[in-house]
Amino acid sequence: MDKIIDVLIANNELKAKAFLDEIDGKNPLFILTIATTETGKISGISAAGKYPEFTDYTPPADAELVLLGKCKSIVGVPVTPDGIPTPALITMSALRLADIPVLIASGGLKIKPQIPFLDLGGSPGRDIRTGSAVDNVAEVIERGKIAGVNLAQAVDYLVIGESIPGGTTTALGVLSALGVSAQGKVSSTLPENPHDLKCKTVNAGLAAAGESIGSLAQDPVKAISCVGDPMMAAFSGLVIGAASQVPVLLAGGTQMSAILAIVNALNPDVLCNVAVGTTRWVAHDKSSDLKGIITQFCDVPILAADLNFELSRFPGLRIYETGLVKEGVGAGGASIAAMAKLGGAVTKDLLLKEIERNYALLMGLK
Amino acid sequence: MDKIIDVLIANNELKAKAFLDEIDGKNPLFILTIATTETGKISGISAAGKYPEFTDYTPPADAELVLLGKCKSIVGVPVTPDGIPTPALITMSALRLADIPVLIASGGLKIKPQIPFLDLGGSPGRDIRTGSAVDNVAEVIERGKIAGVNLAQAVDYLVIGESIPGGTTTALGVLSALGVSAQGKVSSTLPENPHDLKCKTVNAGLAAAGESIGSLAQDPVKAISCVGDPMMAAFSGLVIGAASQVPVLLAGGTQMSAILAIVNALNPDVLCNVAVGTTRWVAHDKSSDLKGIITQFCDVPILAADLNFELSRFPGLRIYETGLVKEGVGAGGASIAAMAKLGGAVTKDLLLKEIERNYALLMGLK
Repeated sequence: MDKIIDVLIANNELKAKAFLDEIDGKNPLFILTIATTETGKISGISAAGKYPEFTDYTPPADAELVLLGKCKSIVGVPVTPDGIPTPALITMSALRLADIPVLIASGGLKIKPQIPFLDLGGSPGRDIRTGSAVDNVAEVIERGKIAGVNLAQAVDYLVIGESIPGGTTTALGVLSALGVSAQGKVSSTLPENPHDLKCKTVNAGLAAAGESIGSLAQDPVKAISCVGDPMMAAFSGLVIGAASQVPVLLAGGTQMSAILAIVNALNPDVLCNVAVGTTRWVAHDKSSDLKGIITQFCDVPILAADLNFELSRFPGLRIYETGLVKEGVGAGGASIAAMAKLGGAVTKDLLLKEIERNYALLMGLK
Repeated sequence: MDKIIDVLIANNELKAKAFLDEIDGKNPLFILTIATTETGKISGISAAGKYPEFTDYTPPADAELVLLGKCKSIVGVPVTPDGIPTPALITMSALRLADIPVLIASGGLKIKPQIPFLDLGGSPGRDIRTGSAVDNVAEVIERGKIAGVNLAQAVDYLVIGESIPGGTTTALGVLSALGVSAQGKVSSTLPENPHDLKCKTVNAGLAAAGESIGSLAQDPVKAISCVGDPMMAAFSGLVIGAASQVPVLLAGGTQMSAILAIVNALNPDVLCNVAVGTTRWVAHDKSSDLKGIITQFCDVPILAADLNFELSRFPGLRIYETGLVKEGVGAGGASIAAMAKLGGAVTKDLLLKEIERNYALLMGLK
């Protein structure tokens, strides 16, 4: 176990170590769950795309980058309005270093990726301020479950990540509907976390749906339908289907707390087989509080890849140390899985070298 | 090896035994590749559906039966015009006996299945008499390849089957275009194999495309585009992607010879990792000649599950012994994989009992 050196533990040390022990040397499948929601286009909500209209292309482009090593749906790679590259770059580098296979799953997309993807029967999400954000939630969860059961029979364990612009706002929406206190605690890709805007957006959605904070604590399917996003339905279904058989690493930041809250409300038994895998940037973030959300309703371990770009030769990567982007596209969980698969052979230093190499290649730098 | 008792060898005994040795005790993933083609609606061509119009529903319904144990897109299960149940019943029974996981892959469908499925970017096929049967073939092959590479990294080996009404006619089309002599040698679900009708259909397609027998020997992508079907593109891509890393069992009858001919023309190196897995009904069929097609261009081993329904208590199953249906939906390969995974624990007798149990359940019999 002590071979996996560059992983920090941010919650439940005992179970976290047991989880790391269990995945040590194992061969996972990485599933990237992608979807779009109009919520991501609200001005000032998301930085997962150069302009709000571009956010429809971010999930398919992220998926292409992770699976192929390059994007097909856009030129270059997804960037924030400041030009910071997508964390899919970290994910792709980690998975390729450790030869970890990838499957893309769609929860509902406006733009389809130009690669193979698992269709789970969902549609793109609407703006949560309508109070009617996602269609067909129960069926998408059910299909996710079936896929999760079958994939878990085939592999050692699963790492599941997400790409959906606007996802922390919909996470706040579902957490609020379920009665979990998350205001001011969800993370952001942006330099200044727009907590007030997210809060207003969620309150407008709950009001439009005729719901209030905590009113849907017993009905997570309705919580997603009213103020969630299509990624959540697909992701939760996959977790419930798989985690009854194999360990599942939820690869992401504060959005994972919404997935945990949904799974906790639908099928709490499987949480004993689940851990969150994130980055140091999320674990140490002062403007959000992943642990503070999760420990309200469960004690799932939180692992954090000890990524550090301080000494990178590229300004575009060093900027991650200022607290921008932080996580996404399963970057932290993919890094942990790569380290766990190959033990000491994959360190944070080696990983940074590989990320720099891919960054230079993709950005046309030297 | 001698533990796997109920498998016959129909070609290349040495390599067949080596292949069985290699998959002995291993945990495969079963992929069912589904698609539709208007060719299946030509009167008298296919029995994979009660009426020609129903053939659009047969592949999704087969997929649902294999993955869920019941159909969602139709009431009951797919049957031939004579009421004989789909061979998906055999596949499902074998896979469930041995806890073998399933993934559905679409090559192009008119009706989408109500379950998770891998979208490979294809469209439904046109009647091959147009000479322009399938769109986007190169891209679907490429996406199949990417999926095959990733799935092979995750599992011990792959078993790949198909469901597409009209598939032996399109198989004859592609084999003819590639210069493989297959007239009078492809199999049929029907009591009387309509060799002349298939031949006329293929000749009309080749003429419409401005091609002739053997004229596309160097261009398998164009052969599929002109006179093939969308299943072939997806299936061939999966084989090429996976078989460079792990064994791949092609689960089917004479349609598998078309897949082999395509793979042989695109990437012959991977054929050393491939075997065909079919049923005794195909291996012993007097109205078709799987071995006679394949051995014209390669020496891939042929395995046949020694299924025998002679002593079944159900007339609907005993009728398989008269030569109807014979194979499909990967029935033979799934049976071989179940026997290989659990050694002597899965015999043809146990398998028949399980098939009878599921048949009675699904048909409402006692």
